[in-house]
Amino acid sequence: MTFPTPSSLVFRQLFESESSTFTYLIADRTHPNEAVLIDPVDSTVERDAKLIKELGLGLKFGLNTHCHADHITGTNLLRAKFPSMKSAISENAGSKADVLLKDNQTIEVGQFVLECRATPGHTDGCMSFLLKDQQQNPLAVFTGDALLIRGCGRTDFQQGSAASLYNSVHTRLFSLPDNVSVYPAHDYRGFTSSTIGEEKVHNPRLSKSADEFKTIMDNLNLPKPKLIDVAVPANINCGVH
Amino acid sequence: MTFPTPSSLVFRQLFESESSTFTYLIADRTHPNEAVLIDPVDSTVERDAKLIKELGLGLKFGLNTHCHADHITGTNLLRAKFPSMKSAISENAGSKADVLLKDNQTIEVGQFVLECRATPGHTDGCMSFLLKDQQQNPLAVFTGDALLIRGCGRTDFQQGSAASLYNSVHTRLFSLPDNVSVYPAHDYRGFTSSTIGEEKVHNPRLSKSADEFKTIMDNLNLPKPKLIDVAVPANINCGVH
Repeated sequence: MTFPTPSSLVFRQLFESESSTFTYLIADRTHPNEAVLIDPVDSTVERDAKLIKELGLGLKFGLNTHCHADHITGTNLLRAKFPSMKSAISENAGSKADVLLKDNQTIEVGQFVLECRATPGHTDGCMSFLLKDQQQNPLAVFTGDALLIRGCGRTDFQQGSAASLYNSVHTRLFSLPDNVSVYPAHDYRGFTSSTIGEEKVHNPRLSKSADEFKTIMDNLNLPKPKLIDVAVPANINCGVH
Repeated sequence: MTFPTPSSLVFRQLFESESSTFTYLIADRTHPNEAVLIDPVDSTVERDAKLIKELGLGLKFGLNTHCHADHITGTNLLRAKFPSMKSAISENAGSKADVLLKDNQTIEVGQFVLECRATPGHTDGCMSFLLKDQQQNPLAVFTGDALLIRGCGRTDFQQGSAASLYNSVHTRLFSLPDNVSVYPAHDYRGFTSSTIGEEKVHNPRLSKSADEFKTIMDNLNLPKPKLIDVAVPANINCGVH
């Protein structure tokens, strides 16, 4: 979100093409040292740190939506570049971090707020982050692998559960206003954003009944992620490998 | 730009990974049949048309910022899916289209306006499109290959001229307010947007003097684009090949 607005929000979406991962930079120009980076990737830390410094920002938090299986988090490398930055992940992720996040906890980004919403199902420790403005209006939700654009994360490893994912998305995400923007952790087809209203209607999996959803998820027959045996052990340790 | 705003703007950025091309969808919800697609790619026309229909929109124009050398425009295929859509390109592009655009011409997208700004230099017929809101405030500029994020299009073929590109960017783009968002036709490093203020300071080529810029551009020694011999003849003919 970089169109000029009356607000002081800084928003950047960044892409890592090897794992098709989106990293998000969120800041408030009036509180430049409280920037947050969601889902940084180890291989793009140099790029991201350069941008953050060019924008005159300092990092307060490096957040992970979950313990990723397809890439190594950049939070460990970022701490070396931004010594006051803290890494954070859900307390249910089973991973080390400076801060373990609880459901419904809020993180202040200057005058803006990120509300933590537990959305397990892809993994036990998946968490979405809802961005709200100064008046507590929801603007956008960063959904990790729980809700993808016209898709969702797989549920066949890392404590995955189709029933749990369906419940998470329907109770914690689809309950948001239709016009809230959806920013996922990945896209593989060139989409960059969606809205809650669109996904409720057009998501080919999550617009179905819970039973139909489970049948779809049980029959995906996906190959094992190439990096899982490297990425998960590293990410459990905050990206140190 | 899909954060909820008081306005009725619909904005989507789409990516084609083979040529690293961005396609932009712009519409006004109050005038759903006046949507515009900037720089569609032939291989992603099915995806884009499906999204446009899911959003309840109809296409008024398929715009090209210039005669591309790295991919075939999707405008020809889109006309078959949206029969009332017109293709458009600068009158200086030397290409066929339903509408040949003049410098300073405006295109209405419902209550929003796209102002055509000739920005030659990468090619003779390069045109940027400045998006303005109902109050004529500039929001974002779609810069094609004239201005890329921390870069710019090459100037060594298709009537390219470093002197002309430098003049275009400095007089027609860097003259805009610093907070105007920059949305280019390509990015190869995972950036998705920038601002005029940032590029004036941090663009490693265009923040330099005209002489330094020419020296940089004269020494890039880039390989010939893989698709140029297919793409340019097709694009001169509105994507028919």
